[in-house]
Amino acid sequence: MTQPSDKALVPFVSVDNMMALVNATGIEAMLRDLAGYIEEDFKRWPEFDKTPRVASHSADGVIELMPTADADKYGFKYVNGHPKNIRDGFQTVTAFGVLSSVANGYPLLVTEMTVLTALRTAATSALVGSYLAPKGAKVMAMIGNGAQCEFQALAFKAICGIDTVRLYDIDPAATEKAVRNLAKSGLTVIPCRSGEEAIEGAQIITTCTADKQYATILTDNMVGSGVHINAIGGDCPGKTELHRDILLRSDIFVEYPPQTRIEGEIQQLDDTHPVTELWQVMRNEAAGRRDPRQITLFDSVGFAIEDFSALRFIHDRIRGTAFFDHLDMLADPDDPRDLVGMVNRAA
Amino acid sequence: MTQPSDKALVPFVSVDNMMALVNATGIEAMLRDLAGYIEEDFKRWPEFDKTPRVASHSADGVIELMPTADADKYGFKYVNGHPKNIRDGFQTVTAFGVLSSVANGYPLLVTEMTVLTALRTAATSALVGSYLAPKGAKVMAMIGNGAQCEFQALAFKAICGIDTVRLYDIDPAATEKAVRNLAKSGLTVIPCRSGEEAIEGAQIITTCTADKQYATILTDNMVGSGVHINAIGGDCPGKTELHRDILLRSDIFVEYPPQTRIEGEIQQLDDTHPVTELWQVMRNEAAGRRDPRQITLFDSVGFAIEDFSALRFIHDRIRGTAFFDHLDMLADPDDPRDLVGMVNRAA
Repeated sequence: MTQPSDKALVPFVSVDNMMALVNATGIEAMLRDLAGYIEEDFKRWPEFDKTPRVASHSADGVIELMPTADADKYGFKYVNGHPKNIRDGFQTVTAFGVLSSVANGYPLLVTEMTVLTALRTAATSALVGSYLAPKGAKVMAMIGNGAQCEFQALAFKAICGIDTVRLYDIDPAATEKAVRNLAKSGLTVIPCRSGEEAIEGAQIITTCTADKQYATILTDNMVGSGVHINAIGGDCPGKTELHRDILLRSDIFVEYPPQTRIEGEIQQLDDTHPVTELWQVMRNEAAGRRDPRQITLFDSVGFAIEDFSALRFIHDRIRGTAFFDHLDMLADPDDPRDLVGMVNRAA
Repeated sequence: MTQPSDKALVPFVSVDNMMALVNATGIEAMLRDLAGYIEEDFKRWPEFDKTPRVASHSADGVIELMPTADADKYGFKYVNGHPKNIRDGFQTVTAFGVLSSVANGYPLLVTEMTVLTALRTAATSALVGSYLAPKGAKVMAMIGNGAQCEFQALAFKAICGIDTVRLYDIDPAATEKAVRNLAKSGLTVIPCRSGEEAIEGAQIITTCTADKQYATILTDNMVGSGVHINAIGGDCPGKTELHRDILLRSDIFVEYPPQTRIEGEIQQLDDTHPVTELWQVMRNEAAGRRDPRQITLFDSVGFAIEDFSALRFIHDRIRGTAFFDHLDMLADPDDPRDLVGMVNRAA
């Protein structure tokens, strides 16, 4: 066995190391720091190469590559979505990602992104909430208590300062799981028997259900004035959570309009319906919440730049730690023209 | 540390393991077997989802993702191209790839592809040569003696039965390197002082130079009737190797016309210039070589399906061997909805 040179080695963060990093840092600190990276990248939005995601559809699901780049770094995420996987004991969504140097094209990081995507989705929601939620909001309703639920609750606690979550899911077992996982979080956790009950007194409403269909998790009469709605679950064509009338009463904020119009709640509206881009709010180039009676809506679908921020965050964070291995993934012959000689010498 | 479940683990072939696999198998056997996979996939060409490659360009180079899929498997290659890298001691091109299950979206294989791409490029060339080169061809000229040169020579020996290579490069050191590496190959290796000298008596002419510019490695008067030209080096916009007049005298065979018209030698011709698709030749649906005086030209640019074949080959070949490691890359909580619980339990 030959010894690969340093140039041949790429840092790799396994699921095990990602979990160890999260636990060593603390989930809330991790979410807060990650939100900082996401905010930094939203504030320099025009610098990014915003390639559309490349999707390969099949009868059972989709496999997507989501690339983006700035002048310095290139990143992409591989992510699948296969709703039937649960039935066979597999995850609906798995993901991994790669960060590279634009200058020489060499990968700088390979990392699991299933856990990391859960973190970045919650960090993005809470970051947006910090701009749009009513001042002093303390209570969040969480409708849909699946894998993303606890991350959302902890992110809104760490970043927006909520102290109470009101949980509802059509499956009581999901709510029980979330109650259990949030028991030591410092949040007041209130399981509810209906969506109506969950939103009582909530200034923030997060919808995060997973059905791949047009669903109506919130109807118009459920939503009072002044709330911030964080709509996470509607994220592909044919999948929405909110009644159209709510959209018409709300000021709608999105990541990237060309993608959100296809994948988000606003697929229910005309293509010309006005939306505000979040990067402009964060740069003070567009208004966020202007009025305590206004309903603000974050129509979240997840964008490649958030994954880029997450890759950049992990790349910085693991430096000098033991939370990664080295992958011998890049051939590095002494003479770049002598690839076959490298192979021969390895014999 | 928790023990990841089998479902969380993805086989990974490092550069070191790839070289060990090649050496254990023998380069020629490896090229022959790989050509078999490529031929199989060319013969079922219409079954593939042929997504265009996704390129991210910068001042110094390009990073590309090349995905393709059939009904059963999905594959993509990450590859960069940075001509200036050599100056800084980095490779011009590095690559890695992933093969996944279409049914559940889970990665089945992560592998280095710098060595593997060199193999698949040579295997494809020789496979095409076996359809198009004149019967009984024994002598190949190799103009351009860089990293791909020896792989081409060995592939044409293993697959087409040549016994002699005539080498020329503008840099004599490159030719010396190739002579050295091919010394024990069983080929008669003849270093030449010019391109003209190299093609004397050759029935096959391989051009494989790396300049990113319109170059004229072969001029019209150099090429006699009846030869097969294997043009490898012209593979991106603005980079060609052959004089336009040679193209006009040749019957041109390509992998995938929409890509070759942009990247190949035929970017010098009208978009309507007739070309033959190789998959149709391999399926006997189009004519290959019809006449001993005909000049056949393979305008090679490299297509995602060849990488897919290479991924499929390695995935099959490593089964039951020690030529791979396991990457803990996919989160696999006992309850898919309990991602945060998995993280907490890892503490």
